[in-house]
Amino acid sequence: MAQQTFWPDGARLAITISLGFEGTSQPISGAGGPITEPIQPGYPDLPTNTFFEYGMREGVPRLLELYDRTGIKVSAYMVGEAVDGNPDLAREVARRGHECVAHGERWEAQYALPPDEERAFIRSGMKSVERATGQRPIGYNCYWLRGSVHTLEILQSLGFIYHVDDVSRDEPFTQRINGQPFVTVPYTLHLNDIVSFNFTNYSPSDHLQVLKDEFDQLYAEAATRRRMMVISNHDRISGRPARIRALESFIRYAQSQPGVVFMRKDDIAMWALQTPDITPLVDRAPAEISGLPGPARHAPVPV
Amino acid sequence: MAQQTFWPDGARLAITISLGFEGTSQPISGAGGPITEPIQPGYPDLPTNTFFEYGMREGVPRLLELYDRTGIKVSAYMVGEAVDGNPDLAREVARRGHECVAHGERWEAQYALPPDEERAFIRSGMKSVERATGQRPIGYNCYWLRGSVHTLEILQSLGFIYHVDDVSRDEPFTQRINGQPFVTVPYTLHLNDIVSFNFTNYSPSDHLQVLKDEFDQLYAEAATRRRMMVISNHDRISGRPARIRALESFIRYAQSQPGVVFMRKDDIAMWALQTPDITPLVDRAPAEISGLPGPARHAPVPV
Amino acid sequence: MAQQTFWPDGARLAITISLGFEGTSQPISGAGGPITEPIQPGYPDLPTNTFFEYGMREGVPRLLELYDRTGIKVSAYMVGEAVDGNPDLAREVARRGHECVAHGERWEAQYALPPDEERAFIRSGMKSVERATGQRPIGYNCYWLRGSVHTLEILQSLGFIYHVDDVSRDEPFTQRINGQPFVTVPYTLHLNDIVSFNFTNYSPSDHLQVLKDEFDQLYAEAATRRRMMVISNHDRISGRPARIRALESFIRYAQSQPGVVFMRKDDIAMWALQTPDITPLVDRAPAEISGLPGPARHAPVPV
Amino acid sequence: MAQQTFWPDGARLAITISLGFEGTSQPISGAGGPITEPIQPGYPDLPTNTFFEYGMREGVPRLLELYDRTGIKVSAYMVGEAVDGNPDLAREVARRGHECVAHGERWEAQYALPPDEERAFIRSGMKSVERATGQRPIGYNCYWLRGSVHTLEILQSLGFIYHVDDVSRDEPFTQRINGQPFVTVPYTLHLNDIVSFNFTNYSPSDHLQVLKDEFDQLYAEAATRRRMMVISNHDRISGRPARIRALESFIRYAQSQPGVVFMRKDDIAMWALQTPDITPLVDRAPAEISGLPGPARHAPVPV
Repeated sequence: MAQQTFWPDGARLAITISLGFEGTSQPISGAGGPITEPIQPGYPDLPTNTFFEYGMREGVPRLLELYDRTGIKVSAYMVGEAVDGNPDLAREVARRGHECVAHGERWEAQYALPPDEERAFIRSGMKSVERATGQRPIGYNCYWLRGSVHTLEILQSLGFIYHVDDVSRDEPFTQRINGQPFVTVPYTLHLNDIVSFNFTNYSPSDHLQVLKDEFDQLYAEAATRRRMMVISNHDRISGRPARIRALESFIRYAQSQPGVVFMRKDDIAMWALQTPDITPLVDRAPAEISGLPGPARHAPVPV
Repeated sequence: MAQQTFWPDGARLAITISLGFEGTSQPISGAGGPITEPIQPGYPDLPTNTFFEYGMREGVPRLLELYDRTGIKVSAYMVGEAVDGNPDLAREVARRGHECVAHGERWEAQYALPPDEERAFIRSGMKSVERATGQRPIGYNCYWLRGSVHTLEILQSLGFIYHVDDVSRDEPFTQRINGQPFVTVPYTLHLNDIVSFNFTNYSPSDHLQVLKDEFDQLYAEAATRRRMMVISNHDRISGRPARIRALESFIRYAQSQPGVVFMRKDDIAMWALQTPDITPLVDRAPAEISGLPGPARHAPVPV
Repeated sequence: MAQQTFWPDGARLAITISLGFEGTSQPISGAGGPITEPIQPGYPDLPTNTFFEYGMREGVPRLLELYDRTGIKVSAYMVGEAVDGNPDLAREVARRGHECVAHGERWEAQYALPPDEERAFIRSGMKSVERATGQRPIGYNCYWLRGSVHTLEILQSLGFIYHVDDVSRDEPFTQRINGQPFVTVPYTLHLNDIVSFNFTNYSPSDHLQVLKDEFDQLYAEAATRRRMMVISNHDRISGRPARIRALESFIRYAQSQPGVVFMRKDDIAMWALQTPDITPLVDRAPAEISGLPGPARHAPVPV
Repeated sequence: MAQQTFWPDGARLAITISLGFEGTSQPISGAGGPITEPIQPGYPDLPTNTFFEYGMREGVPRLLELYDRTGIKVSAYMVGEAVDGNPDLAREVARRGHECVAHGERWEAQYALPPDEERAFIRSGMKSVERATGQRPIGYNCYWLRGSVHTLEILQSLGFIYHVDDVSRDEPFTQRINGQPFVTVPYTLHLNDIVSFNFTNYSPSDHLQVLKDEFDQLYAEAATRRRMMVISNHDRISGRPARIRALESFIRYAQSQPGVVFMRKDDIAMWALQTPDITPLVDRAPAEISGLPGPARHAPVPV
């Protein structure tokens, strides 16, 4: 082959965007948001709940319009309760050609569940997505990326082929779980609107420059190796009018460069499985997965 | 009708600004502010109180001058004790044509009051405003937007026609409370100077760009549906010399676009009631209002 | 008089800068700084102490050079222990023509001291300044601006004629303490490098723009009334190479406008006393000073 | 001598960059990172560990490429466990000509160890570096810069000739430890990516301007005295695509000025020892080192 190919159709750089579909699944009191004074325990946080509701009413529709306008497909991270509460909107996400990724049953710390409950938690969220959208998810994202040491095995047994809760590389990789390859399509924390850009001192021009610098660097490196850029959108954050314009500017900037492809994460995972010659295989032992000595990996860390 | 009309006189986009009128109503110790070291309990926080006093001495007068200079009318969120302590300034706000919105009796967590006390709290603040300004408020804003599950019914029974403590949409809507329509004129958290722009790393140019991006996006969307932009000013924050110039630049930018109207929130609420064909009616069940099962809605969430 | 005069020699706008002279007076453990991990109790925080030492070694000398280069005089807020530990540098500040303001004996919460101890604390810091510099301070600044309800009377009895721990106005004012006028030369929190600009995400261009916007607005208002701009520098913060250039740019910008005068705070206080016709006299009752009912003002707030 | 020489070969200004080599040495739960929700005790923080792993997989290699591309040598601060876990990468750092500085055995509070354990902790980390790279470290950096009052004596007895855990000056200096000169090559907190630039609201253009302003000021001062600029990179922070481009722009900007030299810290320390005429000798008494009265310096501060 005259030229090595890192992405389908000889593309040079893949960009993948996620859409957090979460409104309605937050706890009725205690969820984070722009109100800096904590609420007293025992009262519903009514305005914060409407802040989340904005994501369903305005944020997701606005982002869907943007994705259509620019002709890209994304991977929606859908929480079960958010889907149950907004099934028409979930269906619309699927209808427009986006991937439906399972994102747990509700907004809570999955990593602290015993294995049986964790399996039920994952399965229930997956079923909600399938029921509303007709798509059976093959990708998974944990609440705050935090899974347990059992998560990957559970996912594999339920038919998932990839997860995103790893930010160790700028490219996909596989690992062997019970003898079978399981894909990691790395997520992002530093280009994630949930941690990188709160509303205090948000700067559209800085946001755009960060995205461009990340792109320019990866695009340069992509001449000689496989590189992937990851951006995270959340319904109630990137879906704001004041935020969407910098995002659109970036998408159009990236699209103006030759060899750039926006991909859903399921397509990336499938491609990784089909290209074992250029996809790193990380054979982590259980201890490496958990960061703990082998026998202890199924138990919490002693404190 | 040849062209659908979303706002009075065929305007395309409505912008509504609020002016927090709060100095004097803060607790004498424990109120937030730029001093990062907490004060020991039991001592008055003298400099922080003068920080709030600035709002009455300098901030409100400076903002009133700006509103006059640019020819706009706003909705002042007036706390009862702030009005009682500064009745001449409150009267001046009304005299210049601004709306007087009730904002509670003092700066404290209204949502935790039992229903009878909450009614008295709301009523007392309303009376202070009426006494000083001659205007009887028909709109309401809770401290940190946080009402209880009883707030809307109490407001309705006291003659209010709208509240602002909901940030779920970029347009007004109504809901049926005891069979009668009650308006929500959504407030803002992300364009609220109290949470979006603290003094650390404040950037006039970023502030201006955020306002412009929010405007440009909503203005574009307003070609085909009703859209509303909301900005929040507070006496002691936006009233600073270093902040007012970006704000003025934005107002003049918006005024240079065709079809932009700056409206008081009472006018928006009345318009919403007069245009039921284009105003969403959200018939939230009690459980949806509170986020709790029906019978429990009048009680705090168990912890 | 053809034209009203608000400042000496017909100047239009006064700008006053303070220089925090604090290194060495901080607690050896527990002082704030850029290290985000708290230190365990019982250990000296060695690197943080060197962070403060920087102010004495590099920061103050660099700022003094800047003040000389631009030809301005400032008011140095000098903590007693910082002066005791660095007497030559303190003397140099005075020798170059700057005002020596007393800033307490050490870096601790003065407001919580009983009246006799507070008097001793103030007097001791004052004596340190006088001993090292030959200047007897007539102005005072409390740690974090926080005095007690007795502070002003103590200051007056010790011969001080003004304090700065009030941020309620953009101009000086007087109040009557035991029948005699006592001046407030307001300080700043929002243009104070200790709260407005930490090292995370510091932006020289935003800093400069904030200073210019504050100036432009006050300069415009100064056509018809007395206005004063206040900037705060601290040894270990504004004395950094990366910060001093925006500051110098601002000083030169301000100096390029007609009628701008940089003044020491003692000169402002004397001018305020000499111009009672244009200096507001605020006759606060004790209860208004303390924010407490009269009889309780000498005691801490019950909790 | 016609012209005084402050740096080798008559250079005017020295710039020194450090590279934190830390991934793998963090605690498996409880390490900081962009996830704002604390993890419950007893569970490994899997995604945060992959965030650190990024530094080894992507960050260090990307930074090494940058250093090669711009032709500079840096000082790598290497934690023992990070070296043990990534010996090939550590060796590559050395192979490319960078200095290997010891940075403790693991990511933990060294200052709280009893003297014997502290010695073992330092020695063990030093041995890891030597084993993997063949370089015996002569420089030391404590976790969060925090050493104990014994650290310098221990370092001296182990053959180290300098440390960096002091930010009091913009130039190297020596002190006499047990009669022998021991060098401090000051580190930085305000130009340290670990405290100055988190991912929230990171601005490439502000970052670049801060670096340029720091440089321009020190370069100007360097005409008449010895000046040194310090920049800190960490594997998982500055090694991101979105951050590396501003850094590269700065390096090229500095290299375009006459008389600028990028130096490893061991070379700076050796130069300081060779130029006692221009290197300040700070003969701190033990009490000055510890900030405590002499006899107490070997014990924790009473609380």
